[in-house]
Amino acid sequence: MASEIEIEQQLAPLRLLVKEQGDRVRELKESQAPKADISRAVAELKRRKKQLEDKEKALNPPDEFNRSQLETLLKQRFFYRPSFSIYGGIAGLYDFGPTGCAMKNNLLQEWRLHFVLEEDMLEIESSSLAPEPVFKASGHLDRFLDYVVKDVKTGECLRADHLLDAHLEKLLADKNLEGDSRQEIINLRTKVESLSLQELGDQIKKFEVKSPVTGNNVSDPMPFNLMFRTEIGPSGGVSGYLRPETSQGMFVNFDYLLEYNQGKLPFAAAQIGSAFRNEVSPRSGLLRVREFTLGEIEYFYHPNDNDHFKFDSVADVEVTLFPKDHQVSGKPTRKMSIKNAVDEGVIGSRCMGYFLGRISLYLTKMGIDPKYLRFRQHMDNEMAHYATDCWDAECKTSYGWVECVGCANRSCYDLKCHVKATGASLCARETLKEPISVTINEYHSSKVGKAFKGDAKKIMQYFSNLDNDTAEKYDKMLKDTSQIEVDIDSKKLTISEDMIAVKRYEKEIHVVDITPSVIEPSFGFGRILYSILEHNFRIREGDEQRSWLSLPPPVAPVKCSVLPLSAKKEFDPYIKQLASELKLHGISNKVDDSAGSIGRRYARTDQIGIPYGITVDFDTVTNNPATVTLRERNTMQQIRLNADIAPKVVSDLVKGLTTWKETITKYHLFEGQESKK
Amino acid sequence: MASEIEIEQQLAPLRLLVKEQGDRVRELKESQAPKADISRAVAELKRRKKQLEDKEKALNPPDEFNRSQLETLLKQRFFYRPSFSIYGGIAGLYDFGPTGCAMKNNLLQEWRLHFVLEEDMLEIESSSLAPEPVFKASGHLDRFLDYVVKDVKTGECLRADHLLDAHLEKLLADKNLEGDSRQEIINLRTKVESLSLQELGDQIKKFEVKSPVTGNNVSDPMPFNLMFRTEIGPSGGVSGYLRPETSQGMFVNFDYLLEYNQGKLPFAAAQIGSAFRNEVSPRSGLLRVREFTLGEIEYFYHPNDNDHFKFDSVADVEVTLFPKDHQVSGKPTRKMSIKNAVDEGVIGSRCMGYFLGRISLYLTKMGIDPKYLRFRQHMDNEMAHYATDCWDAECKTSYGWVECVGCANRSCYDLKCHVKATGASLCARETLKEPISVTINEYHSSKVGKAFKGDAKKIMQYFSNLDNDTAEKYDKMLKDTSQIEVDIDSKKLTISEDMIAVKRYEKEIHVVDITPSVIEPSFGFGRILYSILEHNFRIREGDEQRSWLSLPPPVAPVKCSVLPLSAKKEFDPYIKQLASELKLHGISNKVDDSAGSIGRRYARTDQIGIPYGITVDFDTVTNNPATVTLRERNTMQQIRLNADIAPKVVSDLVKGLTTWKETITKYHLFEGQESKK
Repeated sequence: MASEIEIEQQLAPLRLLVKEQGDRVRELKESQAPKADISRAVAELKRRKKQLEDKEKALNPPDEFNRSQLETLLKQRFFYRPSFSIYGGIAGLYDFGPTGCAMKNNLLQEWRLHFVLEEDMLEIESSSLAPEPVFKASGHLDRFLDYVVKDVKTGECLRADHLLDAHLEKLLADKNLEGDSRQEIINLRTKVESLSLQELGDQIKKFEVKSPVTGNNVSDPMPFNLMFRTEIGPSGGVSGYLRPETSQGMFVNFDYLLEYNQGKLPFAAAQIGSAFRNEVSPRSGLLRVREFTLGEIEYFYHPNDNDHFKFDSVADVEVTLFPKDHQVSGKPTRKMSIKNAVDEGVIGSRCMGYFLGRISLYLTKMGIDPKYLRFRQHMDNEMAHYATDCWDAECKTSYGWVECVGCANRSCYDLKCHVKATGASLCARETLKEPISVTINEYHSSKVGKAFKGDAKKIMQYFSNLDNDTAEKYDKMLKDTSQIEVDIDSKKLTISEDMIAVKRYEKEIHVVDITPSVIEPSFGFGRILYSILEHNFRIREGDEQRSWLSLPPPVAPVKCSVLPLSAKKEFDPYIKQLASELKLHGISNKVDDSAGSIGRRYARTDQIGIPYGITVDFDTVTNNPATVTLRERNTMQQIRLNADIAPKVVSDLVKGLTTWKETITKYHLFEGQESKK
Repeated sequence: MASEIEIEQQLAPLRLLVKEQGDRVRELKESQAPKADISRAVAELKRRKKQLEDKEKALNPPDEFNRSQLETLLKQRFFYRPSFSIYGGIAGLYDFGPTGCAMKNNLLQEWRLHFVLEEDMLEIESSSLAPEPVFKASGHLDRFLDYVVKDVKTGECLRADHLLDAHLEKLLADKNLEGDSRQEIINLRTKVESLSLQELGDQIKKFEVKSPVTGNNVSDPMPFNLMFRTEIGPSGGVSGYLRPETSQGMFVNFDYLLEYNQGKLPFAAAQIGSAFRNEVSPRSGLLRVREFTLGEIEYFYHPNDNDHFKFDSVADVEVTLFPKDHQVSGKPTRKMSIKNAVDEGVIGSRCMGYFLGRISLYLTKMGIDPKYLRFRQHMDNEMAHYATDCWDAECKTSYGWVECVGCANRSCYDLKCHVKATGASLCARETLKEPISVTINEYHSSKVGKAFKGDAKKIMQYFSNLDNDTAEKYDKMLKDTSQIEVDIDSKKLTISEDMIAVKRYEKEIHVVDITPSVIEPSFGFGRILYSILEHNFRIREGDEQRSWLSLPPPVAPVKCSVLPLSAKKEFDPYIKQLASELKLHGISNKVDDSAGSIGRRYARTDQIGIPYGITVDFDTVTNNPATVTLRERNTMQQIRLNADIAPKVVSDLVKGLTTWKETITKYHLFEGQESKK
């Protein structure tokens, strides 16, 4: 494999190309160039970045990793499989078998200990089904969509932007394409992702794009919302959706959570639950699916105080950061401590830094290889509609860098949206040290109700929330034209002078309403699980067929195997006793008394990552007190110890109260059956 | 309250009425009376049973229980609340707050230890979304429905049978109603629940039934499926449903699970997950909801061997049983050991008995009061479409007896359904001790394919699965008429002599296919949680306002409170130290340093059922080593002990390694702040 220096030499020219384009984008923005020019330049920047990443990937492949061998193992040992396979399966849906389900439960349990218990988070469980107005308010109904076209004959749906781009790429491949047309297409390609629905349709018509699968014509593009729709209740009146994220359940309950926390900021809510996205084309196994488990944290804090009181506990954690300006200028990632990153302004706040540190600790404890973990900051144009800053914890896999955890600054976006939609008061109250004086605009009316009936309440609410500038503007309008026009819920309303009166005065206030800011770490457990599996897939030296998983004990689906050396009846009582004592310690175990050499059965337990194995052999029966062997998976070393203490020793090892190194010093290394096989 | 003897005296005449009608039903069945007569008699039997139950409930109300006081507590301390309440809420959807969510997580965690870990069950996690053919095969598409009518003006839906019955009841209330009409209505009421769609519609028209809410006319009744429908994928081609139970995910994966279990029977699969039912009218809080968490076990066993190898471990468990013949004959429940119940044939198999015993142990450990727990066997006419026997673990609450766990014998129903729909082989292979001789009917054809094209495969499959009798019948038909008519997937097909040839021979076989039988314990965690809350709701003697929850430590949402006696800065370091050490032991805790007397704060912790509380006071600061008090919730007793051992003592108490009684003997009872308040 190429050395780091050799790799950097090969990457240097590509980094330069990225940097040049990054500078160009900055210049355009600074000179306030037309939006279309900027978006074209940004698209070109993205292309160059992709080129750089592909090259990096090619020069730096994961260590001798054979994906199909891993996939065979995962299928055979039922980590997960496509759902409903006897019915032909449904793309994007997977079932976790006993091994995958246990591993996932371990991830969730450790997440609860690491985040919820450790920080006294308020864990809740809200509904997966939600009525339409919730997602109207959150912006998902209008913005959580892809544009698709339909094959006019088969009805098959295709992503419109992907289709157009692939078509243009094909055109460019034609060497006879003339200069002007070529340039036009090159220009168009740079902005495919930012075309409007109308523009996409026009271009698809103009270039006579067909379905690449069937050669049939395609329909006009249409927006396709990625939420699953259903109807709640029998009358068919209430449109509902399956949630695409769990967070809204925490935002709509903000007031109750604040009350539970005795009115104090900051606090964190947390939730583990299913989310659902109707992907147009699910792919890459567990990485892009239609139903998945999220773990989300909403950390609500005072917008003027973005410190975190436990910051010091992560200050020295080393992380690999890929800030947005490095991406724009083609610079590589930086490895630095959380403290330095915050001090140098790479990470924007101590609070954001704290969570990145905690995320890093969690992932590496769960078995993510730190070499293949980085935090990449979103570029300004790739953030979700609710975010002002976002860092993704990305794990490197054979599919490339995969976003496993997103850590977004949602500011006050969501709470404000729900306040606007419902009029509920979702804010904290802050008692000021010194009272302040504010201008109160008190609007009175008897006639608004009569004139506007159902809308009257909203109108008066609108006026009572006016800021001073607007209030003064309205004063002037009323004086000048005897009426004002307001725009409430997209309705234009005219309010005349005689309907409304304002009383304005100064008031000393001691308490102010605060809409908290929100940092949201959001964990995709399916992606984390898959990345852990790739990072821990191993082949025993000298035996290519013997694959195994080096899963850390807290994550391993089963903690200990219990194996009779061979199928002798006299081993049975020991096997039963050991299995039942392990259970008393809460240690899951698997008895494998099937035929097959002990070596072969060790290999089977290694395949599902069982870290420890107790074997009952002839010496167990003849020794007094009975003894057994205990084997560690990674080293394949064995010790011999008394049967009655073996379960406790395994329990201590699994719970991290002792290490294997300490254990082999205490007992003796044993030349076991495996080496004799 | 009335004594048990007095109560039985009052119930005796009602029991007699039930018995008489039960005998009548049996006679009708034995004499093979017309179906309509039987169903009328059964409906009357149900009515009499209901009357008996209502009387029992009236004579035996739960001990001084005030539901609205409990509901206030649950809302205030955010155990659960209606979802999306700031949007006006959606009936049948609830969000669990920090207390309810923690309690529910505890129930799930204990369930995993009690069932999955203890019995090496294969826990899986399958999709909530499923394509239509799965539920077509399982019978849910055709049979999981209610009949509803619509208010023709408002569109509101109403259960058709409930509507008709309520209308008839009102008519009967009219004293002027004449003899013949009265008798006709009485007869009709006995069979309302068993009316067909057509008959329901006719009766609603005949009696001119209107909506009781608006007085408007109602539509013809229509079937309303209780599954939520959606569309999977963008093309709109794939109809999908949210699962109404988690079990199908285990049945469709049977083959992979069997393979994981190395081909051996018996074994149990288990799953915890969400299920969804679009109830027409959700009600009674958590008891009838649209989204809920189930824990389901499918115990797959050889149909000829319904023993359970751990039966002895539950043989002496005492349970209260309400067998179907007791219900039919008006006899009361029986309290007996699982062993006696199986020996006397009250419970049909050791395997069913085993699970009833385990369920009882789990529920009582979780805080269900054994006095208010019974196992009621389903009557023949109330079982789900898949069951051949079923026992419900019912908990008595202020809503009456509530089904919290169903334990159904699903026999081989589901596996056979999926085999029929997909042709997959969902069976185990049994190696026979002695080979047996079987008749093989081998059908050959070259012309079926040509004649029937797409259906040919199904036809040949049909023939290859023929039993001997049918095969011989077809032989005769072919001889007599040169053709046979078969009915495959509701298509009538004619197959002529020249299309098909049979080769019949005897064969010795050593291995047979076995479709396992299934016992399914199915736990509704929302209902269990609510019943636990009712059974553990208490009021402190002498203070009606002071309600508290006597939740067992494993279930309590928070295990320990940490309280400073008052708001002194010098208490802070001790509070922090104690909280962080408790966490190291995995003990969730809640610091309450809000203003308010210590007594008031104890009361707050009692309200959410925190079993232990550590208090830091002036002696903590002055004593060397520092000491604290430890308070137990149920007795309100306190001990004084060294601060550094307090977390370990609490951890041992919570984990059941010691008892409070042992603890107060070891340390000294302390006359604490609470009694001085």
